[in-house]
Amino acid sequence: MAATDMDMAGLQRRLAEFAAARDWERYHTPKNLAAALSVEASELLEIFQWLTPEQSARVMADPETAHRVRDEVADVLAYLLQFCAVLDVDPLTALAAKLERNEVRFPVKGPEERPDPA
Amino acid sequence: MAATDMDMAGLQRRLAEFAAARDWERYHTPKNLAAALSVEASELLEIFQWLTPEQSARVMADPETAHRVRDEVADVLAYLLQFCAVLDVDPLTALAAKLERNEVRFPVKGPEERPDPA
Amino acid sequence: MAATDMDMAGLQRRLAEFAAARDWERYHTPKNLAAALSVEASELLEIFQWLTPEQSARVMADPETAHRVRDEVADVLAYLLQFCAVLDVDPLTALAAKLERNEVRFPVKGPEERPDPA
Amino acid sequence: MAATDMDMAGLQRRLAEFAAARDWERYHTPKNLAAALSVEASELLEIFQWLTPEQSARVMADPETAHRVRDEVADVLAYLLQFCAVLDVDPLTALAAKLERNEVRFPVKGPEERPDPA
Repeated sequence: MAATDMDMAGLQRRLAEFAAARDWERYHTPKNLAAALSVEASELLEIFQWLTPEQSARVMADPETAHRVRDEVADVLAYLLQFCAVLDVDPLTALAAKLERNEVRFPVKGPEERPDPA
Repeated sequence: MAATDMDMAGLQRRLAEFAAARDWERYHTPKNLAAALSVEASELLEIFQWLTPEQSARVMADPETAHRVRDEVADVLAYLLQFCAVLDVDPLTALAAKLERNEVRFPVKGPEERPDPA
Repeated sequence: MAATDMDMAGLQRRLAEFAAARDWERYHTPKNLAAALSVEASELLEIFQWLTPEQSARVMADPETAHRVRDEVADVLAYLLQFCAVLDVDPLTALAAKLERNEVRFPVKGPEERPDPA
Repeated sequence: MAATDMDMAGLQRRLAEFAAARDWERYHTPKNLAAALSVEASELLEIFQWLTPEQSARVMADPETAHRVRDEVADVLAYLLQFCAVLDVDPLTALAAKLERNEVRFPVKGPEERPDPA
């Protein structure tokens, strides 16, 4: 596997080839991919749903749970990249733009004025 | 902004600095970030929930909806990268590994044996 | 089983007894129950994610899928009722109140002014 | 409002009338309603996503948050009832059947053998 097959654009290409070889493209409407993305994000959350905050910070200590976490992260990223591909959205550019907006929207404050988001 | 600030690792670094400057790190347990990721994925799905498959393919033609789509994609990616950072998971490696497994799990078949996933 | 064990309040009581007998109450914080509710709602959505609108209307024709649908509906309702129990929210009253507000918020219009929500 | 308009069947009838009067039935495919249900469940979770378990137990003390909780509970129940109506599923019967199965699947154990689900 070439180095470029591991970056985001390379993975997006491999996902497209994978779907095309199986004739799965017809299922990949933006709506279906958004649904699948939210389903996979919930499967990631499921791992944590009954854990205390402290337990949730230690999930990678158990090899089986660590594998499950990596597997669900892969699924979330796979559907995010496929969603972005069908709508021609660049996720890195979208995030960079959002970070610029958020710098303005949430200015850094001195500790005394810092609101508790909860 | 340097070119490297736009790749995945660079964005992960900027997200970490953004949270640290606002003292938001204490909210960023793996459990909370997994919840936030699933909430944002649902906000993306919300854009599509009443659309036909055909309408869902045309969402980027409306500038306001296109902006909303990019904004929610950015939020999903932001929480995915922050989740991965706190648990030291590399999302690109996780996806590459999953793709290898899926090549074996879903072999390409001739058209006559191709199952309809629906 | 008495008739009253089948109404909403009766089911809520049986769910509480079920959790108490297994010492699961300590896991049932409002936050955890809200997460579990959203996870189960996604498992229901998963059944439909690759279906066309037409296929989605026929899911109950297949006995196995019909069982899965009923099973996920049960899980969603179970967590909704348990969430409402721990926060002392009456879901029927909440829905009746919302319906009153929505009658005002979305007045019935003549066909010529009816907006397309999509 | 008659007493029977407040029970589950009565609310289901009012929801059906509400949708029919606005010509929204064509949007109410099982797939769309399952998506909307999961979106509303996530909006409920959003209220809790940054809270500690302890803070999550006190949300009803703040009138504005309490209203938001009741409002999202209403939305979840509304879409669950509408989903069940279009597929002719009785949610109370489904839950009663599930409780029967779970009594067998998770037998009550003595404290010494009680597994920690986390």
